[in-house]
Formats: sequence, structure tokens, C-alpha cells
Amino acid sequence: MQRLTVAKQSLRPRVVFSGIQPTGVPHLGNYVGALRQWVNLQREEQPSTKLIYSIVDLHAITVPQPPETLRQRKREVLAALLAIGLDPERCTIFYQSSVPAHSELMWILACTASVGYLSRMTQWKSKLSLASSSTLENRAVGSRLKLGLFSYPVLQAADILVHRATHVPVGHDQQQHLEFARECVTNFNHAYGSHLVHPETLISPVQRIMSLTEPTSKMSKSHEAQRSRILITDTSQDIRSKIATALTDSTPGISYDPATRPGISNLLEIFSVFDAEGRSPAQLAQAYADASPRTFKEAVADTLVAGLHGIRDRYLELSANDSYLDEIEQHGARKAQESAKETMDIVKAAVGL
Amino acid sequence: MQRLTVAKQSLRPRVVFSGIQPTGVPHLGNYVGALRQWVNLQREEQPSTKLIYSIVDLHAITVPQPPETLRQRKREVLAALLAIGLDPERCTIFYQSSVPAHSELMWILACTASVGYLSRMTQWKSKLSLASSSTLENRAVGSRLKLGLFSYPVLQAADILVHRATHVPVGHDQQQHLEFARECVTNFNHAYGSHLVHPETLISPVQRIMSLTEPTSKMSKSHEAQRSRILITDTSQDIRSKIATALTDSTPGISYDPATRPGISNLLEIFSVFDAEGRSPAQLAQAYADASPRTFKEAVADTLVAGLHGIRDRYLELSANDSYLDEIEQHGARKAQESAKETMDIVKAAVGL
Repeated sequence: MQRLTVAKQSLRPRVVFSGIQPTGVPHLGNYVGALRQWVNLQREEQPSTKLIYSIVDLHAITVPQPPETLRQRKREVLAALLAIGLDPERCTIFYQSSVPAHSELMWILACTASVGYLSRMTQWKSKLSLASSSTLENRAVGSRLKLGLFSYPVLQAADILVHRATHVPVGHDQQQHLEFARECVTNFNHAYGSHLVHPETLISPVQRIMSLTEPTSKMSKSHEAQRSRILITDTSQDIRSKIATALTDSTPGISYDPATRPGISNLLEIFSVFDAEGRSPAQLAQAYADASPRTFKEAVADTLVAGLHGIRDRYLELSANDSYLDEIEQHGARKAQESAKETMDIVKAAVGL
Repeated sequence: MQRLTVAKQSLRPRVVFSGIQPTGVPHLGNYVGALRQWVNLQREEQPSTKLIYSIVDLHAITVPQPPETLRQRKREVLAALLAIGLDPERCTIFYQSSVPAHSELMWILACTASVGYLSRMTQWKSKLSLASSSTLENRAVGSRLKLGLFSYPVLQAADILVHRATHVPVGHDQQQHLEFARECVTNFNHAYGSHLVHPETLISPVQRIMSLTEPTSKMSKSHEAQRSRILITDTSQDIRSKIATALTDSTPGISYDPATRPGISNLLEIFSVFDAEGRSPAQLAQAYADASPRTFKEAVADTLVAGLHGIRDRYLELSANDSYLDEIEQHGARKAQESAKETMDIVKAAVGL
């Protein structure tokens, strides 16, 4: 029986699931760290592999924001995903809130997920800027901590499991959440039989792009300085100007050493990602060893502009075409609803609903 | 603006919402304490009042049970609700899990509901038989307590709010949960504008029917002894036999005094509920003051048999008619989905989803 299940599972086509927060137009860190891989999977995976990408608007509301902002950012992310080359026929691209099954499965998983496990997860503490020793019993913590933020790993698990995803591309900081999703599978299957699929990590060389103005922290949407990040829809001019003013150091020449030369090393990383010859940061450092900062930065900017070429134009075109985006959104929602329905039929029958 | 909202709200027809756990055929305690009132509301409320009654199967799974048991019990409750006289045209009768919007709204409410408030609620402690001083930080508590049980007041709030219920008939023990639902409205409306409706209690004379074998505890489904409760589908013979063997006392004569004569007083309560002349327990005690226990019990049984007359026959007929029950269930699901969609359209627009 055990062997049969394993055999069946290996015959089932792979399903890749990943989600992106609707925080507006992605920056270079998002693109290099995750989205570029989403695009590459269209080529690298077998045609039978399902690629499911969700704009996770239900996660976005764990921190309240004005409705018009959220609506606009969702739209921006959708246009950006198409602009970088995701094919809405090859992939399933959808807003999480268009598929009620995500919330439905969350509740069902919540019934077998332990509060203790959740309370030991670290993200709610860091999101509220609490000390890691903070406990739920602290009255001030309890009133600030909302159930949504506390329980969102369960929704995240539901996102993955409702599509019976076999593979999830995750960054290092999300490892804990994938582990929790696997725990949810174990709990559910223990209570109701082997119906949910344990998702595996889809490992990718994790490339962290750092802030241009503060190269010891990650490039981030929330950083105050606009110059700290490059949006994938920036103009060539913007890109050149931001790279030209990126913080480096006064050591002469170019060398790759993230610990002592974070600014230069970050630029070498960016260079390497888009280098047509596929050179590593260290190889590029050698090639530009004696270059002036200005020459080096110009080379980085040239490569980056070429690498992001066309994204901005496609993005602007798509953004102006509301009815096309509506169509894509509805098409994706329908496909995702079908995918989720398959799982929910199985789950509801197993639970007795 | 404030006055306008109030005015608008008072023009809106009343919406009554209530839920019942799918624990199988209801017993006399359920019937007298709640279900009879559901039936009476069909007559007492204006025709414009919406009556929405849900069989809350999603709540049932906070305690896992075999799927076939849950499926059967849902069906039994549905047949019982029809058998006692609920009209599926006048009311909306549906399984909670058929309306995904309940889970969807739960997540949205969870994003503004505080963990602290939930942790101070008492029901999760009593359901796990924990001391009221138990805390979430206790490792043994944390691993036994599932997120479903901890957070179900939020789902219960969503049940009410997703239909914009104005009135909720509640027993004394659910007061805390209605209070929590009102808190959810306040939190949501504070964050997103006045869109959800504060539900009010629909007060009814709370009549608690006690166990026949242990008249100091409530009549309950979970009591071991079958003789402790009367199912509304019991035969006349069953009813007579259970009443005949109900625990009373050796004091001669009949008098109403719940503290010292709980068994006799419970029978007087039951008598009073179904008495055609509408006499109170005290009046009935006077009328039967000198009766023998046997004569008195026979009178109680006669009245109860008359009061439940027809329910059993209708129940058996309905239970045998699977396709009719399917039809009723689907009809109810459609009506409930429409009712919930109205609210979700408003809520999603307000939140920006």
C-alpha cells in the first residue's frame, strides 16, 4: 500500500507553487531572488509540470493598508509578472483572494495544527519588532498581536497544499514555513489518511541582492531611500544614475570580498547575474581589477540595462491595458479554482464535510 | 452621517442567524432550548425578516471524528430541522461548509482580532478540561491546543457577520461569543469603515432541560446513559419508558423546587413547555400536588408525546428520501451563498481585495 502510494505519486506530474506579496512593482532583489527563477522554470521544467504563481493579497492584509493602495499594488505585480516573461497560458497566475479554497483549507488545517508550534515560530515576533523571548501571555503582546499575523503560516501552508504542490522554490528565510507546511500535511494525513502531498524544496542558488545605499542590508521595498533599490521598471537613465551613486568604498581597484567590501561585492553580484558570458563575481572582479569605480559602475549599469531590457516597455503597455489584465486575472482565477477544487473534493470527502 | 447610517440600518429588514452543531438527532434539551424558537420565529417575525440557520460542520471538526459519522450526523440534523417544522422556503437552512465565504471572512476578521482577547476566552480551556489558570505558554497546553479550537470564536463571528445578521438567539453560555463577534465588528469597522453590522442578542426565556438520570446536569448528547435524554425522534413508547424511570426523590407529593427536588422540578419544566393550557411549573405542581409519582409521570409523558407528535414520523419519512434532502441542501446552499456574497462584495471592496 505504502509502495503503491509512492509509485502513484512519482507518476503524478510535478506541481510548482510560489507566491508573491502584492507590494507593487518588484525590485531587483525580488527579481533576482525569486521571479527570474519563476520565468526560467517555464523552460527548465517538463511541459507536464504545473506552474502555479499566486499574488498573495490575503497575506498582505495581516498589516492593514488603504484599500486603494492594495488594489493598485496587486495590479502592478500582475503587470510586472507578465512583463518579466511569465506566460499566462503556461502558468497559472492569480490573486489568492479569488480562490476561496485557500481560506477553506486553512480552517481545516487549523483544526490539526498546534498553537504551541505556531507560538515558537519567529516571524510574528520580528514583524512586531518584539524580543525573541516575548511570550503570548504578555498582555501588551497579546493585544498587539492579531490572529492573522499569528496564524498566517497556516494560510501559507494552505496556499501550497490546496494545489497539491510537489515543489516550492523557497529562500533561506522561508525554510521554516515550508517545514511548517510539511508538519500540517503530517498532522492532516495522520488524522484523515494520506491525502495531502508533502511539498519539497526546489533549491536554487540563493542570490541576495543588497541595498545600493546600505550594502550590508538586503535590498528592500520598505527602505526609505528610493536610491537604495532598482525597480525592474526603472528607466535606463534611472538605473545608470542609481548604480553611479551606489555606496562603495575608497579601496582602490575592484575585488570581491562581501565581508570587507560589501558595496563593490554587491555590484559584482548584480553584474554576474546578468553577465552574458556567465562569469562569477570573482571572475568579474579579476577582469575589472584595475578599473576605476566609474568605469566599473558603467559596465555594471550597461549589463543591468541590457538584462532588464524590454521589461519596462512591456510593463507600461500592459498597465495601460486594463481590459487585458482583467482577462488574464479572470483566466488565472478560473484555472486556480479548478486546481484547488480537485484537492478540496478529496479533502472534504476525507474529513466528512 | 452617523444618523443616516442608523436610519438606513433600521430600514433594513432584520436578519436572524443561528447555528447548530451536527451532533445527530437533537434531544429534548436542544429542542426546548433553541430549535423550538427557530420554528416559532417563522410565525413571530415579520415576513421580511430573513431567517438563516446553519448546520455548522466546520465547527464540528475542531474535534476530529470519523468522516462517515460526521456525514451521517449532518444528514440527521438536516432531517430533524425539517421534521420539527422549519420551512426551507421561509428559512435558509444550509451546511456551513457549503459556503466558502464563512472561511474567507474568518481570515479577514482574524487580521484585526487580537490573540490576547482570544486567549482570555474560557471555552478552549473547558473543552480541553484545563484549569482556568492554564496559559498558552505551557508546552503541554500548546501542543494539545489546536489552532482551530483556539480560533473558532472568529469563525463563529464570521458565521454571523457574513450574513449581516442583526439578531442572534443565544443561550446564556454563548453570550461571550456574541460579545466577541461584536468586538470583531468594531475592529473591522475601525480599520475599514462601517460595513459590518453589530448583531444583537435575541433574548428568549432560557429553558434548560436537565438529564433524566442526573437532574443536576444539563441534558446532553455526551452523557453515557441513553435514558438520560429524550431524542425528538423517540417513539411514544421510548418517551413513556424514559419518563417513567426518570430519577426523582422520595418526598411524597409533587412540588416545584429546583434546588431540593431537581428531578421532579425538571419534569415539571418539561410538562410546562408542552402543556396545552400554558401552565407554569409552579401551577402544574399545584394541580398535581397530591398525585402519586406514577400518575404525575404519566401525565408528563402524555403531554410530551403529544408535544412531539408527528416529528418522528416526518423524520423517518424525510430520512428515507435522500434525493429530497439533497435538493433541500442544495437549495439552502445557494440561498446562503447569495446572502454571503452580498457581504463579501462589500467587505472585499472595503479591504481592497
